[in-house]
Amino acid sequence: MPTRVMLEKYADVILRVCLRFERGQRLIIMPYLTMEEAQPEAFMLIQIITEQAYKAGARYVHIQWHDQQIEGLRLLHADTLEDWPAWESEGILSWYDEGAARIAIAGQNPDGLSRVSPERFGQAQRYSAQFTTPLLERITSDALKWTLANVPVRGWARRVYPDLSEAEALEKLWDAIFEICRVTAADPLAAWEDHVAELGRRNSYMTRKQYAALHYTAPGTDLTIGLPKGHLWLGGFARLSDGRPYIGNIPIEEIFTVPHREQVNGVVSFSLPLAAEGNIVEGATLRFEAGRVVEVTARTGRETLERWLAVDDNARYLGELALVPNSSSVARMRTLFYDGLYDENAASHLAIGTAYKNCLSGGAQMTDAAFLAAGGNISAQHLDFMVGSGQMNIDGILEDGSAEPVMRAGEWAFA
Amino acid sequence: MPTRVMLEKYADVILRVCLRFERGQRLIIMPYLTMEEAQPEAFMLIQIITEQAYKAGARYVHIQWHDQQIEGLRLLHADTLEDWPAWESEGILSWYDEGAARIAIAGQNPDGLSRVSPERFGQAQRYSAQFTTPLLERITSDALKWTLANVPVRGWARRVYPDLSEAEALEKLWDAIFEICRVTAADPLAAWEDHVAELGRRNSYMTRKQYAALHYTAPGTDLTIGLPKGHLWLGGFARLSDGRPYIGNIPIEEIFTVPHREQVNGVVSFSLPLAAEGNIVEGATLRFEAGRVVEVTARTGRETLERWLAVDDNARYLGELALVPNSSSVARMRTLFYDGLYDENAASHLAIGTAYKNCLSGGAQMTDAAFLAAGGNISAQHLDFMVGSGQMNIDGILEDGSAEPVMRAGEWAFA
Repeated sequence: MPTRVMLEKYADVILRVCLRFERGQRLIIMPYLTMEEAQPEAFMLIQIITEQAYKAGARYVHIQWHDQQIEGLRLLHADTLEDWPAWESEGILSWYDEGAARIAIAGQNPDGLSRVSPERFGQAQRYSAQFTTPLLERITSDALKWTLANVPVRGWARRVYPDLSEAEALEKLWDAIFEICRVTAADPLAAWEDHVAELGRRNSYMTRKQYAALHYTAPGTDLTIGLPKGHLWLGGFARLSDGRPYIGNIPIEEIFTVPHREQVNGVVSFSLPLAAEGNIVEGATLRFEAGRVVEVTARTGRETLERWLAVDDNARYLGELALVPNSSSVARMRTLFYDGLYDENAASHLAIGTAYKNCLSGGAQMTDAAFLAAGGNISAQHLDFMVGSGQMNIDGILEDGSAEPVMRAGEWAFA
Repeated sequence: MPTRVMLEKYADVILRVCLRFERGQRLIIMPYLTMEEAQPEAFMLIQIITEQAYKAGARYVHIQWHDQQIEGLRLLHADTLEDWPAWESEGILSWYDEGAARIAIAGQNPDGLSRVSPERFGQAQRYSAQFTTPLLERITSDALKWTLANVPVRGWARRVYPDLSEAEALEKLWDAIFEICRVTAADPLAAWEDHVAELGRRNSYMTRKQYAALHYTAPGTDLTIGLPKGHLWLGGFARLSDGRPYIGNIPIEEIFTVPHREQVNGVVSFSLPLAAEGNIVEGATLRFEAGRVVEVTARTGRETLERWLAVDDNARYLGELALVPNSSSVARMRTLFYDGLYDENAASHLAIGTAYKNCLSGGAQMTDAAFLAAGGNISAQHLDFMVGSGQMNIDGILEDGSAEPVMRAGEWAFA
């Protein structure tokens, strides 16, 4: 199990490198932890972050614990799903608006809510959304500094490494997280500075190029994705409105932008299984015509995939494309983590559903209608699926139709 | 370690027997848990209580986690101690006032705050008191149903059983808690009904007698404690203003009332060590004259004891006397638990400092001045110390000076 020294390095990466916590700030730590399955080391990490934050001048560190199993019991058994501690959501919001920073610590059993029916889940979400939506809006609009990092819990470790003993699986998952998050680097802070600087350079290059489209080829894939005018490549540092930087989640190995919702044509094959909501989709292909998914195949989970595409009208359109080299710190593990954050940083991916307005110049100020007209997508869905591999080539297509290499055999083709 | 079946029985005792939880209520569970030292079983108990509460018609179960180690880091390192999530205290208060019930689950390392200076502790308490005092007032005035129960954590188990391995100590502490709290009884609910009925009978008997004084004799003890007119013996069921009963903490083996602050004379010897705030007092005696402690001796910890008596002027006067038979479920363990709740239920005890107004007929409506004039005591201090043993005799002294046996050799002397 991890030593205190390793946990201190991980805390350092989270608090200093990613959150760039500032003296005098309040800090809200939100452990999304399956408590019964957590190890003492998970709680120790939270303590270490708390201690480091106070030593760095935190005004107050508030821990808002979330236990998915406890929430699951409500979803399974409560007479009513229409009650909520509104004062808690409102209180957290008031602290966000007074300048608090937020760290989420995720350690959930991927099967934790598998007994809950989608109907009950949806009913509860619809009621609580009136209280939680303002919190999410602050996060997605960079109104506060926030960072998300993971810790192993037993159920997650068992799922990732089913052939190991529980203790071995936990140990291996800690090791994987530390390796992926550069905690094992000789100088983790320097390694992170180099890494985000590289992501920044690649964002600048790609944004400057303003490719009209990207052309993806790989076994089972021949897809052209148009890019709207004024698209911005992001990834690495996020920024508050006054320019102060932070890193919103670790790992972060991707750069991403917004596709033009009506300019996607061709076929794309999933390169990794897609695990979400306790379901798994494997060996899938999507065929697009004028941006819309018109054909779906899958070795397993085709119906699940169709259901995800049917959430609303725009769930059949792309909302994100992200480039991740095949040598990324996550991809090197060759492991399916059953965790969106880890898995999406393992390979170049696309997402059906809603797009990020801040990936379009001036997009953050656009109405939904204006964003749609500019080529963005708006949907209640946002689901990432992995398409990249060591066999993928990607060309950037300029306005004049000429092509330049962006990725070759899964790796960057420019400096 | 405890089986799920035993944890379910314990949850049943807490939720049904003690809290008497009602359909449609909200439930606030406050685990005062040293998370890093807790076992999965502690979290499992909280889950089981949550599940049982929802199945019993709970409107919402909110878990407000308190980790003493996290609070300790604030007390040790924060630049300012003058900040607080006021919205949380106010939110909990609003739920109390809308009819919520409360379960506190205590599992703390007794040495958890030993590195914090009394000055910093006091400073933090003074600031947060403006937010937390209304919550405490609701609890002490029976404005809501509340129950406090314990779970083992590693630091506590090590302290209680220093000669055992950690795993053995935890196992033995779970066993002790289950035994003491009648969870091991063939029918725990029936055992509790019998027990609180007996406490009720003894309260009625003692209240009806209206002894003018109690006279304690034991090796090193010869003490007479006057009782004010209209004193009430309590213990067992507490009651909301509309009469609905609940049990405020488990274990509960005592019946207690208010002494007359100016009518205490003689010498009393501690029968058990007194552990509080990381300090220990052993082999102590107190000599009282006209209610006031005029002489203190102790084999160890005399200065600590003097400090506790010097909190304010009235800290040198008694505020509580409680009778616990030497065969009580806690006393039978012959174990110092380093936990106020457990240790005070192990032996007849007294407390210096503030008295409970509800132990005097009409006392709850009295001003502080009126309560003092009636023989009650008001102080910022309330510290229990154990005086009972198998060698203690207690007589009840009637108005005419005649004596009747109340306890003999540590056991009840009336039916």
